Amino acid sequence: MPARTAPGGPLAHNVDRMHVDGLPTPALLVDLDALDANVARMAARHPGRALRPHVKAFKTTALAQRLVDAGHPGFCCATIREMEGMAAAGLGDDLLLANEVLDARRLGALVERGARVTVAVDSDVTVDAVAGGGVREVLIDVNVGLPRCGCDPADAGRLADRARARGLEVRGVMGYEGHLMGIVDRVERAAGVEAAMTALVTAHADVGGDVISGGGTGSWDLNPWITELQAGSYLLMDTYYDRLDLPFAQALIVLGTVISVAPGRKWAVADVGLKALGMDHGDPTVAGAKVWFCSDEHLTFSASPDVELPGIGDRVRVVPAHVDPTVAKHERMHLVRGDEVVGTWPVDLRHW
Amino acid sequence: MPARTAPGGPLAHNVDRMHVDGLPTPALLVDLDALDANVARMAARHPGRALRPHVKAFKTTALAQRLVDAGHPGFCCATIREMEGMAAAGLGDDLLLANEVLDARRLGALVERGARVTVAVDSDVTVDAVAGGGVREVLIDVNVGLPRCGCDPADAGRLADRARARGLEVRGVMGYEGHLMGIVDRVERAAGVEAAMTALVTAHADVGGDVISGGGTGSWDLNPWITELQAGSYLLMDTYYDRLDLPFAQALIVLGTVISVAPGRKWAVADVGLKALGMDHGDPTVAGAKVWFCSDEHLTFSASPDVELPGIGDRVRVVPAHVDPTVAKHERMHLVRGDEVVGTWPVDLRHW
Repeated sequence: MPARTAPGGPLAHNVDRMHVDGLPTPALLVDLDALDANVARMAARHPGRALRPHVKAFKTTALAQRLVDAGHPGFCCATIREMEGMAAAGLGDDLLLANEVLDARRLGALVERGARVTVAVDSDVTVDAVAGGGVREVLIDVNVGLPRCGCDPADAGRLADRARARGLEVRGVMGYEGHLMGIVDRVERAAGVEAAMTALVTAHADVGGDVISGGGTGSWDLNPWITELQAGSYLLMDTYYDRLDLPFAQALIVLGTVISVAPGRKWAVADVGLKALGMDHGDPTVAGAKVWFCSDEHLTFSASPDVELPGIGDRVRVVPAHVDPTVAKHERMHLVRGDEVVGTWPVDLRHW
Repeated sequence: MPARTAPGGPLAHNVDRMHVDGLPTPALLVDLDALDANVARMAARHPGRALRPHVKAFKTTALAQRLVDAGHPGFCCATIREMEGMAAAGLGDDLLLANEVLDARRLGALVERGARVTVAVDSDVTVDAVAGGGVREVLIDVNVGLPRCGCDPADAGRLADRARARGLEVRGVMGYEGHLMGIVDRVERAAGVEAAMTALVTAHADVGGDVISGGGTGSWDLNPWITELQAGSYLLMDTYYDRLDLPFAQALIVLGTVISVAPGRKWAVADVGLKALGMDHGDPTVAGAKVWFCSDEHLTFSASPDVELPGIGDRVRVVPAHVDPTVAKHERMHLVRGDEVVGTWPVDLRHW
């Protein structure tokens, strides 16, 4: 790993160092020490190309640069916009769109400009679309149990033949065991991953190529069958993954301000609402508080027993239930060490 | 009402008229005829200043212009950014921040530039903050049953006195009966609204001023106690409000493309995921389909009985469960009439 960069890193936009209370709220905060510790812990187990960090979880080229600095030159993306932004920033010498696409011309344009672009395909239609759009390399996306994309494992070899007949380089297979990521019981999760990856390895035997891509934060140390791990949530974390026994620290919070306290101090309201939070995994959490509900721009909460309800103007730290959609709602993330803001990164890979 | 403008209206950005299938997906679509019908129906009951449209539901100055054209010169907002954007666009001669704020300097700056700005206050702290920030006019925000902001109704008169002592003009009261908006039974909803508004009217007697502001789409024809209705969802609608017996049409959809079909045609996957949808009210709906779940960039669904599952490349129309956060996730809304795209509006009032 290269030498540790200065606080905020060379890519942090210059800001006057300030106390976090100087930020307008709601504000997305990233604990830089926690982020760096997460990067290092994952890199120790999956160094270099053994990790293909998933850009969808952070959508920020400055954070991707930190992963390049930590030794990971390849990335995977979920949208064409993420691919375009990573290529435009000169990041990643090996970009995988781990998703199916029908209009591949925007990806073909990246290839023309010199980017190495690989795309997942799972059907004749997507093979033809990718070939027609000017993309040259693919992975065969194999369904390993999650009811989403991916071909029948038994059809993977035929699909690879079709891709090669269309002039595409088939680099291997990918299969995402996403239906298993949230299983709290580690033994049960491990058994599920083994079954899913057995299907993927069998398909790989029919497909060929060097790459077996899969996994995620929930299987980071449970998946020896793959050649590269697709993980992203481990970097910033959320309460969903915090339920598992993972050695990654919560690096992401949404900072809010208490704007109202109810008569009798029965509840308080902070200015972190559902427009600032990914809500598909449920409500966020606040230490020392019981969250009642979120509205567009409000979080109503009461104090836990033996905890004092904050007063108007006090800051609260809200931990999201799902990191990916939370980050996608913000224009920027502020980097903090303790109570000091040491930099700001634009969340520059949003939308489509 | 002024003469009906040309399709797309004068504010629509120029685009070559195109078929909706030419749009990259996911794409936010607004049915312009449905929107105009909703505007007209509400304006017939709450003309001019009797409606204070809520900008948080659409976050788009071009749509606000359409409401000005329909005779509504005043607006309410939920964020300072919405207030700033509306003022910068010269829209609204009477902008209400229907929310509490502690750092009111950005609002005071709008006042200095000539905007009429009114802010909700519900505590001594927010009265002092608003006065200190250079704002001159307030409404006393009264809690009418929703566990969120708003002072004790019995404290409203005292708070108004304090505001006047700080040199603020107290224009009246506001109280939002948001806890009642989703009650499907109309009689039950009406009874709740009456109880809530009785408290608001009582507080108003202690406060004074000309304004009693409240209500929303769910009480649009059930609230004769207010002088102005704060409604926004009626413009574009969602499946949450569609459960009620309201005469407003669904004008908003998210257009997607089927990118994968499972082996045996058991399910299909469209490229409209939870990053393109407000998820706090649950999954979206697709006509003729059963929605299984949403991932970041995917919607997995099966066909309803006697309906054919779409094929790869087919378009699907996804109706969000909650309009406000859905709009907030998109950079632009495309205006459609039937299958023709007749304009595009930037969603230019997002973030904070």
